[in-house]
This record gives sequence, structure tokens and C-alpha cells, in this order.
Amino acid sequence: MEELAQTQAMYFASLAGGIAFALSGFLAGTKKKLDWMGLFILSFLTANGGGILRDVLTDRTPVILLSNEPFLIALAVTVAGGLFKLQRYDAVENQWLFVICDAVGLVAFAITGALVALAINAPFFGFVTLAFLTAAGGAILRDILVNNVPEVLHSGFYGSIAILVAIAIYLLNMQSMLASASLLGVFAGSLILRLVAFHYRWNLPKP
Amino acid sequence: MEELAQTQAMYFASLAGGIAFALSGFLAGTKKKLDWMGLFILSFLTANGGGILRDVLTDRTPVILLSNEPFLIALAVTVAGGLFKLQRYDAVENQWLFVICDAVGLVAFAITGALVALAINAPFFGFVTLAFLTAAGGAILRDILVNNVPEVLHSGFYGSIAILVAIAIYLLNMQSMLASASLLGVFAGSLILRLVAFHYRWNLPKP
Amino acid sequence: MEELAQTQAMYFASLAGGIAFALSGFLAGTKKKLDWMGLFILSFLTANGGGILRDVLTDRTPVILLSNEPFLIALAVTVAGGLFKLQRYDAVENQWLFVICDAVGLVAFAITGALVALAINAPFFGFVTLAFLTAAGGAILRDILVNNVPEVLHSGFYGSIAILVAIAIYLLNMQSMLASASLLGVFAGSLILRLVAFHYRWNLPKP
Repeated sequence: MEELAQTQAMYFASLAGGIAFALSGFLAGTKKKLDWMGLFILSFLTANGGGILRDVLTDRTPVILLSNEPFLIALAVTVAGGLFKLQRYDAVENQWLFVICDAVGLVAFAITGALVALAINAPFFGFVTLAFLTAAGGAILRDILVNNVPEVLHSGFYGSIAILVAIAIYLLNMQSMLASASLLGVFAGSLILRLVAFHYRWNLPKP
Repeated sequence: MEELAQTQAMYFASLAGGIAFALSGFLAGTKKKLDWMGLFILSFLTANGGGILRDVLTDRTPVILLSNEPFLIALAVTVAGGLFKLQRYDAVENQWLFVICDAVGLVAFAITGALVALAINAPFFGFVTLAFLTAAGGAILRDILVNNVPEVLHSGFYGSIAILVAIAIYLLNMQSMLASASLLGVFAGSLILRLVAFHYRWNLPKP
Repeated sequence: MEELAQTQAMYFASLAGGIAFALSGFLAGTKKKLDWMGLFILSFLTANGGGILRDVLTDRTPVILLSNEPFLIALAVTVAGGLFKLQRYDAVENQWLFVICDAVGLVAFAITGALVALAINAPFFGFVTLAFLTAAGGAILRDILVNNVPEVLHSGFYGSIAILVAIAIYLLNMQSMLASASLLGVFAGSLILRLVAFHYRWNLPKP
């Protein structure tokens, strides 16, 4: 099934997500007065940290190191963000264009994580871990570096989307129903759910 | 010798430790107002982060990913902790039942770390690193995530127990005296030392 | 080319750097009131964390675990630092002896990172990542553990030196001009640049 993760649609979804994630790294960095180099590194790590964690855990050399593209995207986002002084607009992260790209990335990254779990024959919670880590790991590393408690652990309905993606793919695979069409359904459903969750400001309860 | 780490006694010791570690993750998370999902992730990471670091460093796919059990334990601890509102009782971590389970886990995890060092023919400090990291790595990751300076680095006589376990196993192996009986002695001795250290609130000096 | 990284000159450069990095870990730890064990761990991690990250990312068992020497250096630095109460002298990190050893380490570690990138046929940004991470990764891990935003991300002209080393080695290799002599030139040039940057308190601009 891993070739599904390499279709052109997935490529563009990952690209949109990579840009949105890099921008969120840039914005978090400007709040802590990072310099240009620090902003570039934080943008890159936010966009690619999840994939790096996934690859390290599954004992592969991170694919990110073997290509210039992820760096060029983070560099372009940093330069554009800095030149247009995007950090001055508090509302950037609430713009629908940003929210949609971010949600597309969240879902696309969760799917690639779940497909790696499939490839290594992981049990149920292996799907959950790899989908969650691929999708939310970059944001968690970002928050650790700028010294915040990771946002995904205490607010929003965000990491939960990655977990739902993992559950859906696990169940589809168990029923031998995993195919391009059903994966597209998972993608669309999760994306809509994330946008609804954002619009209504869903939060998980706390005990 | 690695089969020693797979005896039933070690299994139950790791289980008791996993539960205590997960509970300490749950409690640390509630102090930072994590939601249910964040609490589950922190519980899981506190219990299993040490083993994951050990496996990544020794270039193995973390065994944790290949089994549902560690997740189910963390999930059960989180749900139970939240339902019984354990975070309301400041004294949970000072209850003897908790302290004993935590100490059993500390010693059991340190032993499995040292036995991995033995298996890869590590030198003396390889034993120390792997024992320390397996036993205390989860608590360090927990403190990094909730934005505290790792407790094990500044107070208590806790990480030192893992280092003493490593030294004992290294010396026993050098004398060709490593066997089930001597390992049981290391276990019992370290456990008692930890409980004494807890009771008398030992701290290491600071320069 | 990797044998270049194993010459005696590189060994002494890494040694000087390891001592300076370990000392900076010791000093950062005393500010957060770590105990002797915590100080030893932080010294060790600051000196060797970069190399460990590099080895984990390139899927090798960290060489550090297979030798006692890095630990003995960190231990000696911690003991000496504590006995001489170096933390009382605010200016330690501004002494020229410290600054030179630290700069030598920065450059030497960046070179070993870039040579690993060469060995795995990494593209341009793989050189940058591995040089930067090997040289600055230890300081970043140190700052994460003591709960600071990594200094290298917001001040000084420090991580940039590692990136320049990577660019120089990448270009030399592309021109088939990578040899002991040209590498010595990179070393000397980067070292002088770092000392000039320190003397004039260079900072990168912020957007």
C-alpha cells in the first residue's frame, strides 16, 4: 500500500502541510526573538520533525536528509515570512488559507505514518503512535525548543484527528478494504472533521 | 544473559514499574492542565520513553511499537487516574504502594538496560548510560514535555540507583559471577537502598 | 575522506572541544542547582549530544557508547569544575582559553559532521544538517534540559560557523579539491572567523 503515499495528490497535500507547518514554526520562533538562522531551523524542524521521529523509530535513515526540497521549502517560508513581517499579524494562524493547509498537512502526515505502520506489520497502537508522531511530532519538537508545554497535549481537537486517521486505516486494512478510494474517503472525512473542530473551537475534556 | 531479563519475575517487576511510571506521568500532566489525550501520551511516554531511548541508541526498532500492551497499561492508568481524580490527592506519590512500585520499576528497568549493554559488549560507561537511560529516561522526557528541569538531575537519590545497578552488573560480569542468583541479589539490594533513600529523603550534594 | 576525521590533529581538536563543551554544560547546570550526578550527565550530554544525534540520524550505534573516554572527560571536567567552584566566576565563559577551546570544538565537530554527510552521499542540505547538528546539537540538548530557549537559535554568530563549514566542504568536494590541505584551510579560516565574531559580539539580524 505504501505506493499510495507516493501519489501526486499526497505529494501536494504534504507540500501544503509542509508550508503551513514551517510557517507555524516561523511564527513561534519570532515570539521568542530567534534570529534568521534560528527561525529557519525551527521552521524546518516543525515541518519535518514528525517524519524524522517516525523514520528514526522505525530504524530508517530519515528520508528528509536525502533531499534538498524540505530545506528549500523551510528556507522559502522563513525568508517570505520575515520579509513580509508575517509575525506582525496576530491573525495569520486563524486565516482560512493557513488553517486549510495545516489541516491538509495534518491528515496527509497522519496517513503516511499509518502506512509505515502497515509496512512494518505494527499492531493497533503502532498505527496510532506512528500516525500521531508523524503528524504532531514536528509541532511538539517546536514547542519543546521554544520552551512551551506542547499545545497539542492540552488544547484543540488536533492530535485526535491523527489518532482517528490511524484507527480508520487500521480498521480498513483489517477488513481488506484499504484502497485508493477508501483512503481518499479517510482523507476527506478527517479534513472536514478538522475544519469543523477548528470552526467550533472544539477541545477535549480534562479530568 | 538476556534471557534473564525475560523471566516472569522481571515481567511482573516491569509491569509494576510501568504502572507507577505511567501514574507519575498522569500526575505531572494534570498539573499542566493537559487534556485526556495529552495525559495518555504523557503517561505512555513516562513509562516507555526510557526503553524507547535505549532501543533507538542501540539501533533497534523499539520493542514497544510491536506490542499493544504498554499502550493498554498507560491507557488504563490514565482512565483510572482521571475517573478517581487521583490528581486531587497531593500525597499519591508519597504512598508506600506507589513508592514501592516505582522503586521496583526503577531497578527492573536499570537491569534490562545493563543487560542490553552486556549483549552489545559495551564498555563500563555503556552499562552506566543504558541502565540510567532505560530507568530514568522516561521521567526525563516527561519533565522536558511539561517544561520542568528534570527532577532526577537535581534531587533525590534516584538516578544514582540505576548507576549503582550498572556498576554491580558490570563487576559481576567481569568476575564471571553473573547468574540468576546474583542478579536477584542486585535487585533486592538496590530496591532496599532506594526505599531507605526515599524514607530518609537522601539527596546528593551539590558543588 | 573519513580518515581525515581520524588524524591526530582532529583528535586533539575534538578533545579541546569536548572539554570546553563539557564545561559549558557544568556551568549551565550549576545555575539550575543540579546535583553532582546531574552535572555529570549535563556535561556529558553537552559534549557528546551532537555526535549522538548525528549517529542516530545516520542509523549507526553512537560511537560514544563504545568507549569510556568521553565519559571520563566529562567526569574529570565535572569534578574539577566542582572542586574549583568554577561556577563562582561568571567570566569563565569569556576567558580566552575557554573561548578558543570552544571554537576549536565547534569547527572540529562541524567538520566531522560534514564528512559523515560526504560518506553517505548526502545532498547539500544533508551536509548543513549534519555539520550543524554535530557541532551545536549538544548545546541545544543542554538548553532543552535546563529549560532555556537554545541560545544558538537567538544569539551570537555560532551555529552559522558550522553551516559555513558545511558549505565550504560541500563546495570543495564538488570541485574535487577536498584534501588534507584544503580541510586545514577550512579549519583555520572558520576558527579565525569564530574568534573575530566572538570578539566583536556579532549577532545575526532578526526579522
